[in-house]
Amino acid sequence: MKILLPDTMPLDPTLPEGWEAAVVDARAEIPAAHHDADVLVVWGSSRAHLASAAEHLGNLRLVQSLAAGVEGILAAGFGEDVVVATGAGLHSPTVAEHALSLLLALVRRLPDALDAQERHEWSSELGGLQPLHPEGRLTTLLDANVLIWGFGEIGQRLAPMLQGLGAHVRGAARSAGERAGFEVIADADVLAALPDTDVLVNILPATEATTGIVGAEVLGALPDHAILINVGRGATVDQDALLAALQAGTLGAAGLDVTEPEPLPADHPLWDAPHLLLTPHGAGGRPVGADERIAANVRALVQGTEVLHASAR
Amino acid sequence: MKILLPDTMPLDPTLPEGWEAAVVDARAEIPAAHHDADVLVVWGSSRAHLASAAEHLGNLRLVQSLAAGVEGILAAGFGEDVVVATGAGLHSPTVAEHALSLLLALVRRLPDALDAQERHEWSSELGGLQPLHPEGRLTTLLDANVLIWGFGEIGQRLAPMLQGLGAHVRGAARSAGERAGFEVIADADVLAALPDTDVLVNILPATEATTGIVGAEVLGALPDHAILINVGRGATVDQDALLAALQAGTLGAAGLDVTEPEPLPADHPLWDAPHLLLTPHGAGGRPVGADERIAANVRALVQGTEVLHASAR
Ligand SMILES: NC(=O)c1ccc[n+]([C@@H]2O[C@H](COP(=O)([O-])OP(=O)(O)OC[C@H]3O[C@@H](n4cnc5c(N)ncnc54)[C@H](OP(=O)(O)O)[C@@H]3O)[C@@H](O)[C@H]2O)c1
Ligand SMILES: NC(=O)c1ccc[n+]([C@@H]2O[C@H](COP(=O)([O-])OP(=O)(O)OC[C@H]3O[C@@H](n4cnc5c(N)ncnc54)[C@H](OP(=O)(O)O)[C@@H]3O)[C@@H](O)[C@H]2O)c1
Repeated sequence: MKILLPDTMPLDPTLPEGWEAAVVDARAEIPAAHHDADVLVVWGSSRAHLASAAEHLGNLRLVQSLAAGVEGILAAGFGEDVVVATGAGLHSPTVAEHALSLLLALVRRLPDALDAQERHEWSSELGGLQPLHPEGRLTTLLDANVLIWGFGEIGQRLAPMLQGLGAHVRGAARSAGERAGFEVIADADVLAALPDTDVLVNILPATEATTGIVGAEVLGALPDHAILINVGRGATVDQDALLAALQAGTLGAAGLDVTEPEPLPADHPLWDAPHLLLTPHGAGGRPVGADERIAANVRALVQGTEVLHASAR
Repeated sequence: MKILLPDTMPLDPTLPEGWEAAVVDARAEIPAAHHDADVLVVWGSSRAHLASAAEHLGNLRLVQSLAAGVEGILAAGFGEDVVVATGAGLHSPTVAEHALSLLLALVRRLPDALDAQERHEWSSELGGLQPLHPEGRLTTLLDANVLIWGFGEIGQRLAPMLQGLGAHVRGAARSAGERAGFEVIADADVLAALPDTDVLVNILPATEATTGIVGAEVLGALPDHAILINVGRGATVDQDALLAALQAGTLGAAGLDVTEPEPLPADHPLWDAPHLLLTPHGAGGRPVGADERIAANVRALVQGTEVLHASAR
């Protein structure tokens, strides 16, 4: 039995007896010598790579992605009997950490501090005696109301971090209820919750239903001091509406790790939006626990038990 | 019985029967009408204010500071029977939050991201597929070794936050042992621990013993990728040695909220040090729970029980 590992990151999963691993160029077609592979691991793999796999790997039973989204794999034309497993969860620690970084930088006004530093200015606005909760500005997460829209693996990892900083955290997802000890409201109730929301963290996947879901209505319902973070997908935000809100001052600040499109073209107006902090899709991009996940799913395949995070086909 | 509150922040402590509160100008001498006060609350109070209090408040029994350091009060010449209580603990949530902000911003390279953003550049160095633990650079707190030097109120608040992000956290203080569930090493063992330290967080008070304690030897013992955070006092760091280490690349980055002197003069070389992020003493400056602390210590005075955080005279 054979598993093909991509050359895009170092991998060394523990495999059952009788299994061999081969490393292949993830940007090239699969060499004929490996057309007998049973499992394909995908990370940064090109469209041509996936297409050749779909066409030539006759024994293939599992495509194990290390990414959270598997749109590209599902579009590559694998047979219906091939299980496609997502890398859900492998990016939770890194993406949650990045979301927290963006949020804290904006709350603590680090972009302004860097500007003042460049001018060699010890800014009295950024230091010294301060009110704990100044009017019209969010300067601490202590007692802040945070809503995490998209309360899955990443959201549930982020929530306790924010709670540890003294924030009041709720989630929003397709269905309401309690998850991981946090109150989760349904999408339909988000609009009503926004006037009381100081921080909206968007960790939604890109689907038809989420396209542009953070638009003028959502942004308008948030208080003027509110901060928006997006580490989900760029397409979930109406960027024109976001730009307008930042320019009008009806949104306090925004931190984005994702945009639409990516890369963001150099002449895009978002680059220069006031109170915007933008990182180039760097939140995740480095699976944590990939070897363990691969090993677990190969084992599941061998033993006929349930493959973790198999995606609905 | 009378308590004098400073006009530098809104305060409304619950007082025992028979007590009255008066708000006084913290930058001016105490008016004669208030020379009968029993308790003085100090926040952003001027030297003249403290001196006039020491001279004229004949009934004074307690000076309650809302700041962590009470050097100025101790120097003002209050009688030996006057208890001086520090505001220790009132700044833990805000200073810990700020330390985390500085650290995460450097780990996630937000200053570089802001530079790229200004150039409208979607930097491939800051996003896309990345190694989890690249050689020679700290890009996540996951599995990072953090040493918090000065493991008091603030350090013990910060430690679980870092642990929640996946870091391995130890403290260092004057005596070793376990505190709040974390291993604490003694000052004498710090040097030996540094080669294995990815992040050194300095939360030391300024004392004779800590002056310049983070100097060439300490900085030299840290790995080249290490990050230094200082939210304690500027005098604890040898700034020439810090500048040299940053310029030589033998320290990865530094985030400072405190300098020596403050404000840092406009022509100081530290402003332009590479990989340095500087905020103008803005970590704390906004006591949390001041009313409750004042109320508790007035109650202690009335009941003859122990005053919280009375400073050694
Ligand atoms: N920036 C980066 O580097 C990076 C890295 C990895 C992932 N991501 C993004 O983060 C997203 C979330 O990842 P995850 O691991 O947390 O995924 P997950 O565990 O699948 O969670 C997704 C969450 O979004 C909710 N959701 C899905 N469709 C929705 C809709 N139409 N309306 C409202 N909520 C909806 C889900 O609600 P239910 O729970 O009710 O189903 C769930 O709470 C990924 O899809 C990806 O786009 C970004
Ligand atoms: N940047 C800001 O806005 C801001 C705001 C508030 C406070 N601060 C600074 O933060 C400092 C710490 O505050 P805190 O509330 O955490 O104070 P704390 O509870 O008194 O803790 C101080 C810690 O430092 C240690 N320490 C004291 N002298 C030392 C020495 N000579 N060598 C090694 N360790 C020593 C103590 O060790 P032991 O436990 O062994 O005694 C203790 O662990 C304050 O002194 C102040 O300078 C800064």
